[in-house]
Amino acid sequence: MATETTAPAVTYADVEAAVRRIAGYAHVTPVITSRTLNDQVGAELYLKCENLQRAGAFKFRGAFNRLSVLTPEERRRGVVAFSSGNHAQAVALSSHLLGIPAVIVMPHDAPATKIAATQGYGAEIVRYNRLTEDREAIARALGEERGLVVVPPYDDPYIIAGQGTAVHEMRAQAPPLDMLVSCVGGGGLIGGSCLSARAIWPQIRIFGVEPEDGNDTWLSLQQGRIVSVPPPASIADGIRTLAPGKLTFPIEQENLEAVVLVNDAEIKAALRFLLFRLKVLVEPTGAVAVAAILAGKVPVAGKRVGVILSGGNVDPDVLAGIIQEG
Amino acid sequence: MATETTAPAVTYADVEAAVRRIAGYAHVTPVITSRTLNDQVGAELYLKCENLQRAGAFKFRGAFNRLSVLTPEERRRGVVAFSSGNHAQAVALSSHLLGIPAVIVMPHDAPATKIAATQGYGAEIVRYNRLTEDREAIARALGEERGLVVVPPYDDPYIIAGQGTAVHEMRAQAPPLDMLVSCVGGGGLIGGSCLSARAIWPQIRIFGVEPEDGNDTWLSLQQGRIVSVPPPASIADGIRTLAPGKLTFPIEQENLEAVVLVNDAEIKAALRFLLFRLKVLVEPTGAVAVAAILAGKVPVAGKRVGVILSGGNVDPDVLAGIIQEG
Repeated sequence: MATETTAPAVTYADVEAAVRRIAGYAHVTPVITSRTLNDQVGAELYLKCENLQRAGAFKFRGAFNRLSVLTPEERRRGVVAFSSGNHAQAVALSSHLLGIPAVIVMPHDAPATKIAATQGYGAEIVRYNRLTEDREAIARALGEERGLVVVPPYDDPYIIAGQGTAVHEMRAQAPPLDMLVSCVGGGGLIGGSCLSARAIWPQIRIFGVEPEDGNDTWLSLQQGRIVSVPPPASIADGIRTLAPGKLTFPIEQENLEAVVLVNDAEIKAALRFLLFRLKVLVEPTGAVAVAAILAGKVPVAGKRVGVILSGGNVDPDVLAGIIQEG
Repeated sequence: MATETTAPAVTYADVEAAVRRIAGYAHVTPVITSRTLNDQVGAELYLKCENLQRAGAFKFRGAFNRLSVLTPEERRRGVVAFSSGNHAQAVALSSHLLGIPAVIVMPHDAPATKIAATQGYGAEIVRYNRLTEDREAIARALGEERGLVVVPPYDDPYIIAGQGTAVHEMRAQAPPLDMLVSCVGGGGLIGGSCLSARAIWPQIRIFGVEPEDGNDTWLSLQQGRIVSVPPPASIADGIRTLAPGKLTFPIEQENLEAVVLVNDAEIKAALRFLLFRLKVLVEPTGAVAVAAILAGKVPVAGKRVGVILSGGNVDPDVLAGIIQEG
C-alpha cells in the first residue's frame, strides 16, 4: 500500500509533540534511587520506572502516540500490531482507551500473562510461530485484507518519538545526567531516549545493552550497516529482535558510545537485586541495563547515570524460577 | 532492674519528637496509588511503602528513635533486642549508624535473609526456639549479665512514637484520609499510627488486621483485657505475637473501630496482586492490610484510605512458593 520512500527523520520536536499527546493518558513514572545500589557501583543511579507505566512497560508511550495521529477513517477500520508482548498490550490498551478496534499478532511462546492482559483490553489475538514464521508478513497481510493500519513495534517515527518521552520526563526528576543506560531491542526506546537525552544534556554519554545472543545492534554498529541475527533465546524476551530498524539504526549510530552485552545469569542476578533489595519487580528485559552496570560493563564510577527499567511484566513461573536460582 | 510503675502515656507530641530525631536517618517513604487496585475495591487507596524503609520495614523508625535517647553510658555498654526479624535488623542498623554495640536474640526459624542482614550490620546473634523458649527472658538475662539496655519490639513509648512517624508523613503525601488500615502485631505500628492519625484527622476510622491464628488483639478487644494466644503459624511472620502490649493495648482500645482477620490464602493473594499488578515486593505481613481490603473485610467503598505496607523482607524460597501457588 505505502510507497517505499526515504524514511522521514525523527527529531526532539517529535518527542515534545508526543509529550503533549500522551499527557493525561500515560503515567509520569517515578524515578527511584537506592543507597545500597549506589554504594555497590560507586555512582549515582536514577532508575526510571517504566515497569510502573500503564500496561507495565514503556511501550504504551509510543503506541498511544502513534494511535493518536490516526485519521478518523483509520480509527474506524482499526489497527494491527505484531509483538512479543508489551507492545501488544500497549496497542491493545491504547486502542481500548481511544475506541479503536485492534488485532494483535503474538508469538506462540509469548508469556501467558501478556496474552491474557492483551485479551483483557478487548483485542483480537492471532498467534504465530516465532521460530518459523514472519510476524511482520502476517500482520501486513491482515492489514491489507481488512484495511487495518499496521502499528510496528519500533521502526516508526511516532513510536520512536513516543518512547522518547520517558527520558524527557527525567529532566524534571533527576539532576543533570552524565550518562544514560538502556536496554536495546529494535531501537524504539533507545532511539527516542537518544533524541531526548542529546537535546537536554548535549554532552551525555549513552550506552545500550543487549543480550549476548541478541547482539544485532552491537554487530550492526561494528559493521556500520544493519546486520541480522538468528532468533535469540535470551531470557530477555522483550528484546529478542533480529535487527535494528531502518529509522532507529542511524540514531543509534549517531548517539551511542557503545553497546555492551550481558548474559542470562547477569540479567537474572540484576532482577533479583532489584526485587529483594529495592523491592521493585521488573521483567528480565527491564533488568538488562542494571545487569550491565552491576557486572561492571559500563564506566559509571562517579557519574550521575539515568537507567531505564523498561518493563515489569513477567510470568509467575519464570519469576519463581529466577528467584530459586539465586 | 526497673521498678514496676504505671506505664507512662505516649502521645502525639512524642511522635513529633521522634520525627525530629529520625530526620536524615530514616527514609520518608513514598505513598503509591494504583488505578487497578482502586477500581477493584471502589476506593482511593494510599499505600504507605514501609517496605522501602531502611532495613526493609517500618521497624527502623522506632528502633532509631529509642536508641537516640540512650545516655552516653548506655550507648557505651550497648543494647539487646529480641525479634522475629525486622526489629532485629532495625536495631542492628540503628546501632551501626550510632556506633552502639548490639546483641540480637532471634528465633530458630527466622528467615535466613533477615538473619544474614542482621549479621551484616555487625550485630551479635543469639538464637532461641520460638515454640519452647521465652525470648524476652533470654534478652533480659543477657541485659542484666552484660549491662545492656533491652530494646523491646513494641511495648516501649519511644518505639511506639517512632512507628507513628510513618502515618505522620502521610499528612503531606495524601489528601485527608477517611480511614486507615494497618496490620497488627504487638501494637507498636498500629499504636503509633493511631496517635498520628487521630491527631491529624480526628474523625478517621482506624482498622487493624490480624492473621486468623494470631488474633490476640481481636480477642483482647472483645474481652476488654489483654488475652494471649498460642504461638501462631501464620505466614505473616512479622505479626506472630502472642498478646498486645501493656502500653499499646489501651491505645488500640481507644482508637480501633475493629480488628478484622485474614487467612494465609488471602495474604498470599494480596502479596501476588501487589507484586504482579503494582510491581512492588512486600513480605507476607506487609500484604496483610491489603489482603483484608481485597477480601472485602473493611468497608472502604468510596473512601480515601491510608494503607500501610509494613515491610518487604521475604525469603526467596518463601516468595517462590507463594508465586507458584497463584
